[in-house]
Amino acid sequence: MVITCKKDAPQEELNKIITKFENYGMQIKQIEGEDYTLIVVVGDTAIIDEKRLMCNPYVESISQIGTPYKKVSRIWHPEDSVVDVAGVKIGGKEKIVVMGGPCSVEGLEQICDISQEIKNAGGRILRGGAYKPRTSPYTFQGLGREGIMYMTQARKLTGLPIVSEIMSTDKIDEFVENVDLIQVGARNMQNFDLLKALGKTDKPILLKRGLSNTIEEWLMSAEYIMAGGNNNVILCERGIRTFETYTRNTLDLSVVQIVKKKTHLPIVIDPSHATGNWELVESMSLAAVAAGADGLMIEVHPQPECAWSDGQQSLKPKNFKDVVEKARAIAKVVGRDL
Amino acid sequence: MVITCKKDAPQEELNKIITKFENYGMQIKQIEGEDYTLIVVVGDTAIIDEKRLMCNPYVESISQIGTPYKKVSRIWHPEDSVVDVAGVKIGGKEKIVVMGGPCSVEGLEQICDISQEIKNAGGRILRGGAYKPRTSPYTFQGLGREGIMYMTQARKLTGLPIVSEIMSTDKIDEFVENVDLIQVGARNMQNFDLLKALGKTDKPILLKRGLSNTIEEWLMSAEYIMAGGNNNVILCERGIRTFETYTRNTLDLSVVQIVKKKTHLPIVIDPSHATGNWELVESMSLAAVAAGADGLMIEVHPQPECAWSDGQQSLKPKNFKDVVEKARAIAKVVGRDL
Amino acid sequence: MVITCKKDAPQEELNKIITKFENYGMQIKQIEGEDYTLIVVVGDTAIIDEKRLMCNPYVESISQIGTPYKKVSRIWHPEDSVVDVAGVKIGGKEKIVVMGGPCSVEGLEQICDISQEIKNAGGRILRGGAYKPRTSPYTFQGLGREGIMYMTQARKLTGLPIVSEIMSTDKIDEFVENVDLIQVGARNMQNFDLLKALGKTDKPILLKRGLSNTIEEWLMSAEYIMAGGNNNVILCERGIRTFETYTRNTLDLSVVQIVKKKTHLPIVIDPSHATGNWELVESMSLAAVAAGADGLMIEVHPQPECAWSDGQQSLKPKNFKDVVEKARAIAKVVGRDL
Amino acid sequence: MVITCKKDAPQEELNKIITKFENYGMQIKQIEGEDYTLIVVVGDTAIIDEKRLMCNPYVESISQIGTPYKKVSRIWHPEDSVVDVAGVKIGGKEKIVVMGGPCSVEGLEQICDISQEIKNAGGRILRGGAYKPRTSPYTFQGLGREGIMYMTQARKLTGLPIVSEIMSTDKIDEFVENVDLIQVGARNMQNFDLLKALGKTDKPILLKRGLSNTIEEWLMSAEYIMAGGNNNVILCERGIRTFETYTRNTLDLSVVQIVKKKTHLPIVIDPSHATGNWELVESMSLAAVAAGADGLMIEVHPQPECAWSDGQQSLKPKNFKDVVEKARAIAKVVGRDL
Repeated sequence: MVITCKKDAPQEELNKIITKFENYGMQIKQIEGEDYTLIVVVGDTAIIDEKRLMCNPYVESISQIGTPYKKVSRIWHPEDSVVDVAGVKIGGKEKIVVMGGPCSVEGLEQICDISQEIKNAGGRILRGGAYKPRTSPYTFQGLGREGIMYMTQARKLTGLPIVSEIMSTDKIDEFVENVDLIQVGARNMQNFDLLKALGKTDKPILLKRGLSNTIEEWLMSAEYIMAGGNNNVILCERGIRTFETYTRNTLDLSVVQIVKKKTHLPIVIDPSHATGNWELVESMSLAAVAAGADGLMIEVHPQPECAWSDGQQSLKPKNFKDVVEKARAIAKVVGRDL
Repeated sequence: MVITCKKDAPQEELNKIITKFENYGMQIKQIEGEDYTLIVVVGDTAIIDEKRLMCNPYVESISQIGTPYKKVSRIWHPEDSVVDVAGVKIGGKEKIVVMGGPCSVEGLEQICDISQEIKNAGGRILRGGAYKPRTSPYTFQGLGREGIMYMTQARKLTGLPIVSEIMSTDKIDEFVENVDLIQVGARNMQNFDLLKALGKTDKPILLKRGLSNTIEEWLMSAEYIMAGGNNNVILCERGIRTFETYTRNTLDLSVVQIVKKKTHLPIVIDPSHATGNWELVESMSLAAVAAGADGLMIEVHPQPECAWSDGQQSLKPKNFKDVVEKARAIAKVVGRDL
Repeated sequence: MVITCKKDAPQEELNKIITKFENYGMQIKQIEGEDYTLIVVVGDTAIIDEKRLMCNPYVESISQIGTPYKKVSRIWHPEDSVVDVAGVKIGGKEKIVVMGGPCSVEGLEQICDISQEIKNAGGRILRGGAYKPRTSPYTFQGLGREGIMYMTQARKLTGLPIVSEIMSTDKIDEFVENVDLIQVGARNMQNFDLLKALGKTDKPILLKRGLSNTIEEWLMSAEYIMAGGNNNVILCERGIRTFETYTRNTLDLSVVQIVKKKTHLPIVIDPSHATGNWELVESMSLAAVAAGADGLMIEVHPQPECAWSDGQQSLKPKNFKDVVEKARAIAKVVGRDL
Repeated sequence: MVITCKKDAPQEELNKIITKFENYGMQIKQIEGEDYTLIVVVGDTAIIDEKRLMCNPYVESISQIGTPYKKVSRIWHPEDSVVDVAGVKIGGKEKIVVMGGPCSVEGLEQICDISQEIKNAGGRILRGGAYKPRTSPYTFQGLGREGIMYMTQARKLTGLPIVSEIMSTDKIDEFVENVDLIQVGARNMQNFDLLKALGKTDKPILLKRGLSNTIEEWLMSAEYIMAGGNNNVILCERGIRTFETYTRNTLDLSVVQIVKKKTHLPIVIDPSHATGNWELVESMSLAAVAAGADGLMIEVHPQPECAWSDGQQSLKPKNFKDVVEKARAIAKVVGRDL
């Protein structure tokens, strides 16, 4: 950490800062510049509250050196983490995993049929929404517990592990009992109470990036889960909010390699929510695999025009199968399998 | 709602859409354009799931006419709403209300002292954080219930009603019992479970705008609360996330008059979180009052350099008093009092 | 175009609007809704100035149906355009074209050497900056005309056509005479005087997307060039500005298929400027080809650490060759060659 | 400047960097951290090309201490600059200056009439567009030189100095001869050829902030003009592009005090382009004055519904007068006059 202080800062004021850091066992150097005085702090500065320091009137600015996260960082865990989702392994040199299924679970027959289609097409995890975060209170809010139970039936049928979104801490027992991979949605990426509670479980967590969250904030949210003791975190990019309104969000595929450099955690891409447009799902799926993603999460619905939510971004099973096959060919080019 | 259909759409496909809407009791007109066929739907289209319609392959685009919110809309409630926070009225022609206090409650003495300072300076509601949403799991997370109880002590001392942020549904009873105005923070603006639960209380709610949420999404979140039966909603703008990194966020003051046109709810500005810099708080406070805001929410700390969180954006009590006095002079120019 | 008018608009005011459009030969329907009156306008509304209409106090909002561009639109030109750059064809079913070269031309030997490397690696057009847009007036501004002349020497040597950025209209003759593909940079995407002047030439133009320009604005800028009579336009995505600061910009690969749906023009991706980080260039190049791009534009420098500009985002020739080879394998999977 | 190097960087590599800086006369300290080695550079690092340094494989990141601009900086010129626009002084303790006029000059009578209205209302500079940057090539492009000449006639009539936008270097003589304040529009903020050419004149320049440019880039563009020798620069904020689409742009009023801290140059606010909505102009004008702006630039048109461009954001003369009067009252509260 480098603290830039005003040139006219009295030495006694600088000493207060220096002493404080030394008390934390950090190593300090003071450097006199022409326009500024610098205090360089070496040590584990993650515990320092930067904003608190900034309110010192003699402090002009602060530069963080190093990272504020620890367990998430590749520095502390150089090998890729592999997360085991009820037997399906995600991350590392493992096969790229495709997850598919409807935005919303609509009924037992629907989810069982789709599950079969997903399996036939080469998908290995079934997704389905039971508790739905909807912008409007007047639109379909999901089947809730009933939806989760239908998914467990579908799992019995096909053997595919299931992933579904959790929206509040009071559902954790229900999810731990029934779901194989618990999704934290974009809107809850900084619902810290939820993250803390999930950190106390040992279930795999699929942590979506928030609509307007930086990569660093996303990794800090993963750190919340890992700080609680749960190391089974999978990251999922699903587009960020930008000025462009043609797509629902802007899919940021550069995060794949950035995340792989900074952390050991696996990363999955959701092209359906990112684009909000089924016509873009194939190209973005192939691009994601080419970029090095460890998995894809794709919305599939047999009759998108009748879906209870997000039909516009859902592929028909036939198209899903096409995408899986093309993605497999791309995977081979980049030294992976699918 | 206007649905633009492809020119080659078979009439029987268009009829399916038309019939569906007619069954909802809506009025339909079909118009033949040169490049497109338009279906114009007149009626309460808020219940229609636009995305579901978009997945029809013959539909090119959809334009919403009218608004997706109802209870929040000024069309349905032309007069300004006035929300009563334990005797302090916010909105309409009432005095502009200044809320002040520390980012975090740090102790009983601290919050009592600040409360006194806020009151002396002309502030009318005491703010204080007890449950803190922090990006890092390693920084101070707030005193929790203890912090709330200290605030109630401060209220006993000065008579100022108190506002604090709630982070999860399991704390609702605690907040309803102890707090006068319950704040929903930016990160939880689309925590729909929390909004629904708050809609069932009758406590005033301060709903902050999410970091990257549009005005419409913000009003939809207010609609969630009102749909549950709680009409006591106050909106709070606290800056949006943009590419500019000099300020913590970009304060969007144009929302004041936009919100006043679209809705009857009061609106308050938080210049402290918006800018993240105490040096900008005075100018943004005065600007907010000049723009027509119904209130201000300002962080105040006697020793910002020692604050346990967000000291950088806190005013000292003396500066807070200056701001209140200047804001009062501005208020008079725009026909209000403070 | 659908004009939503206030319910209390007098019929004579609506008639003024209607008459105006009818005088332009457009077809009008007026529809009475519950809350609003709609005027639906059918015809070529591209010539209508929407903002002028919006200032009518009885007009609530306007929805454009159809597109404001014509020559650029695929509706008017269903087949893919193929642009011929001195014998290298870009677009349609043609081979994917890789362009490579240094950010800045630094000398005759440098550009000749790199040109040879580009050719050997499979690159087919040489890029090089001679007139450089730099944020700071104190950094290297490019060799100017000298740089262009060095590039023509390199072309003589290897036969590769050359592309370079133009920054003002007074250099058009120089560029038309010497350069095979004239690049309009992101900062000049809405330098309309420049676009108009280029529209009067018949040289191929590489039109980069502006940092914060929507897809529609980008296509409108292409329309400026085509409206002048020059149909040889190639689009180039190079990242947009977002809140994320880890990468220089956020590369929006979803534009590839969006652009292909809306327009017949070829599209090329520049992963170097988009990411600003050579470590991300390979993955983004492969992703771009997987997404369906017609070309790549990659910065290459033999000693990036000594480059006079943008070395951080430049590949070494050896890495460039690797990328070209992997991209070729990806191209084959998506039914193209390279 | 602090250069964070990888821990495994060989000392000889670090020495190369160190020697390079020492050759520039800078002072260097090397500090060994646990995870990184730091090189702290003290001296005038504005001339260093940061990106070039970043391509060194042993360099992890670079933090700038101090600013990359010099002449613009308040450090080098502590007093406020006052720019004299044909007798009207802008900046410092001078009166706040209101500029008004139509988006486009439409004819001699129109501009003369408006000029009279502006003067009567208390406006002190006449704005008018003659060369118009329009997104579409099919909409009105301005009267060009004819428009400028009409403005000079209006000036003769009322004595108000005139401001108009320049779009290319070949018009500089025309503008220097006829216009009192030359506006560089948002789209040309980084048209560096234009900035350099304007730096060689001694005319006052009104430099608008680009749609998606940071404060630092904006100040660097001002530095381009000043580096050429022209110190008469006035900054103008006109809104930035964000995800919010309700307003044309998002007006960032916090820049007023930020700019005043960083630079000595005056700053003016344009609420008309920022909001794109005349109903928001009054509130944003008052907010701008309350925030400390040195001037306002407001679009005025006698019949906005008939304006040839941007009527939607224009005030009628009567409303303009109201705004000026209210702004004057606000000005007095913040210790200024108008």
